[in-house]
Amino acid sequence: MRVIELNKLSKEERNRLLKRPAIDMDKTSEIVRPILADIKSRGSAAVNEYARKLDKYENESLIVSDQEYEEAEQILSDKTKQAIETAAENISAFHEKQLPNGYEVETKPGVKCRREFRAIENVGLYIPGGTAVLPSTVLMLGIPARIAGCKRVIACSPSKGELHPAVLYAAKIAGINEYYKVGGAQAIAMMAYGTDKNKKVDKIFGPGNQYVTAAKTLVSIDHEGCQIDMPAGPSEVLVIADDQANPAFVASDLLSQAEHGIDSQVVLVTTSHGLVQNVLEAIELQTTELPRKEYVKECLKSSFALVVNNIDEAIHFSNEYAPEHLILNFPDADEVVDRITNAGSVFVGPYTPESAGDYASGTNHSLPTYGYAKSVGGVSVEMFMKGMTVQSISREGLENISDAIIELAETEELKAHANAVRVRFK
Amino acid sequence: MRVIELNKLSKEERNRLLKRPAIDMDKTSEIVRPILADIKSRGSAAVNEYARKLDKYENESLIVSDQEYEEAEQILSDKTKQAIETAAENISAFHEKQLPNGYEVETKPGVKCRREFRAIENVGLYIPGGTAVLPSTVLMLGIPARIAGCKRVIACSPSKGELHPAVLYAAKIAGINEYYKVGGAQAIAMMAYGTDKNKKVDKIFGPGNQYVTAAKTLVSIDHEGCQIDMPAGPSEVLVIADDQANPAFVASDLLSQAEHGIDSQVVLVTTSHGLVQNVLEAIELQTTELPRKEYVKECLKSSFALVVNNIDEAIHFSNEYAPEHLILNFPDADEVVDRITNAGSVFVGPYTPESAGDYASGTNHSLPTYGYAKSVGGVSVEMFMKGMTVQSISREGLENISDAIIELAETEELKAHANAVRVRFK
Repeated sequence: MRVIELNKLSKEERNRLLKRPAIDMDKTSEIVRPILADIKSRGSAAVNEYARKLDKYENESLIVSDQEYEEAEQILSDKTKQAIETAAENISAFHEKQLPNGYEVETKPGVKCRREFRAIENVGLYIPGGTAVLPSTVLMLGIPARIAGCKRVIACSPSKGELHPAVLYAAKIAGINEYYKVGGAQAIAMMAYGTDKNKKVDKIFGPGNQYVTAAKTLVSIDHEGCQIDMPAGPSEVLVIADDQANPAFVASDLLSQAEHGIDSQVVLVTTSHGLVQNVLEAIELQTTELPRKEYVKECLKSSFALVVNNIDEAIHFSNEYAPEHLILNFPDADEVVDRITNAGSVFVGPYTPESAGDYASGTNHSLPTYGYAKSVGGVSVEMFMKGMTVQSISREGLENISDAIIELAETEELKAHANAVRVRFK
Repeated sequence: MRVIELNKLSKEERNRLLKRPAIDMDKTSEIVRPILADIKSRGSAAVNEYARKLDKYENESLIVSDQEYEEAEQILSDKTKQAIETAAENISAFHEKQLPNGYEVETKPGVKCRREFRAIENVGLYIPGGTAVLPSTVLMLGIPARIAGCKRVIACSPSKGELHPAVLYAAKIAGINEYYKVGGAQAIAMMAYGTDKNKKVDKIFGPGNQYVTAAKTLVSIDHEGCQIDMPAGPSEVLVIADDQANPAFVASDLLSQAEHGIDSQVVLVTTSHGLVQNVLEAIELQTTELPRKEYVKECLKSSFALVVNNIDEAIHFSNEYAPEHLILNFPDADEVVDRITNAGSVFVGPYTPESAGDYASGTNHSLPTYGYAKSVGGVSVEMFMKGMTVQSISREGLENISDAIIELAETEELKAHANAVRVRFK
């Protein structure tokens, strides 16, 4: 982990720290494009072939059967079931408050305008698999979809034949309607375009590797494809801490992020040189116990600790960086939250590790990376819905705004628009 | 206008009616790509060159001066000013209710989770120009941005040297901070990447021609670019009417859409053969007065009237079509709005023409086209903001969810995540 002092940096060096590593999607897109085109034209037969070829899928049907759900429930320990249920409870409690409210405004007498929300009918969730098993992601995507009222929620995960029982138990709790054992670009194509065996979805959610990300991007700009949740990059944490912070706590938070993969972004911003040294020592100590040591070491090589003069400077830097996860580990941290303008999720105080939000506090863990927190929020119930406006105007109401409509339509040289009002008063 | 009977169609023919004409962006993208790359590397000098070369811009500075705003205000008639002000009042009144509310939930004792909203700091608005002059679009994008609290709102329109005074007056009312007289792909590149002369924006809003649309799409998938409001296609209206509807009203609504351009989508769905004939006659009659006759005639050639057995069938077809604008012109139409699942904006009753919503009822006229109403709503205040989650957990709170966190982290084989909890209770 490099240690850098903010006030010794030139403007250019500072800007470089704010940037994420460049992502070159061109090569991945070249691999993914023919898979998408093939599934678009050949449908389920092509999906099956890619699942067998690329994921070594060995069973008959790709769809999870009722029997598989039942077996999963029998195999799974009570302890794991309990953990999934506690997480689901908290995620539900937090997300239920996100159901948006419609309203009506009478903008002029007789001109009633309202807004109503509708669930997106068909949604697709991508749950990564392979080396990772992610029941938490099933909950984080499935529960908001269910709260929104989506009619059909389908999920996909790569598999050689079976899915982890924790994933299936989470899917049952979240109310997933169909679960397909297919991953990668082939899963995204199947959901975005539909096949002879299943209807296309209107929006795809969920994280994934570079192939999944490239496929999601490509279907999102194809008029025959579908919408996606948000653009993706490697996961990130930025910790702001002062000399009061417990170095072991800070080290453990940085390591939780580092174990995700070698491209994880791990940043410590602190007012204290002393803390940096103690954190580095604690990292050394804690890493020895970790199974994913190699990821962690590689990741930390490209990470940095930034020493600043005061918390104000730290907040300013963080707002420009726009981290996915922001941990505030200093006294009275709650008082500065109002000044955080760009972050996916904020963790306040010494007893709020990132892993609490990853699993069980109740907030969503699908969050904007790569600086997208400047313009996008994390996954929420509203992302599974869309607002629709409705206007209901009486004859008197239309009279009250007819001058404005006609004058603006004529300014814009759209005579038929003006005529649609005039003809009603002839 | 073709007249089709729904119950004589095969499933394939029906599905073909639901589809929009294919859009081939490949050629346009090839033209746009080098412009984006050039501006990304050469900055404002390149923007200037393209404005001069492609839009024949003739003045010195691209940015609108205070003097230009003042002159616009002097030139503009009181009648036009009044129309802009009335529209702005209604748009403000309707959109102010969209400011989202934060909230807090204590999901378990000591686990406080909340959601807060922040405005996107830098936003860019594209206001088409050329043959069209669109003060209404300035209001529809600028007012929600101002209500959201965006710090910096910039706008771009193509120009040979000046902008229409109505556009500048609308920009003043909407509180646009900087207005640039530059259009097309060069405007999108300037906003998305920033230049030596202006800071990049975080999100771009607004309609545009094929070059603008292609440029918006390309910057939205470039990690160095920015987010965009929504995907775009030609404008659309679907009118549902029965034998009680006044044919002249229906004709005027279809014509308002048809005059937008030859690729506009115009659909009439009705229970009455008689209405179709009367509407066709009224169209003939009203078209003679229209300056954009040629657009209208060309557009109507590819449009269709669909005769159905009852209003239920009409609603079902409309929900599958997912029109940008949906007009319900039959008795007690308000009672069926609950069953409309996919539409951008709904116009209820005989005195609610689409042009009311285009200009002055208060609802937004930037709406999802091309069937995207299945997954996206029109422009709203929330689209200029993003949700951020915050969790603040006490020692006791963390204890209450520690079993769930540790169990799930270990199921997912992420030991450092579990360790971040354990280390806090050592």
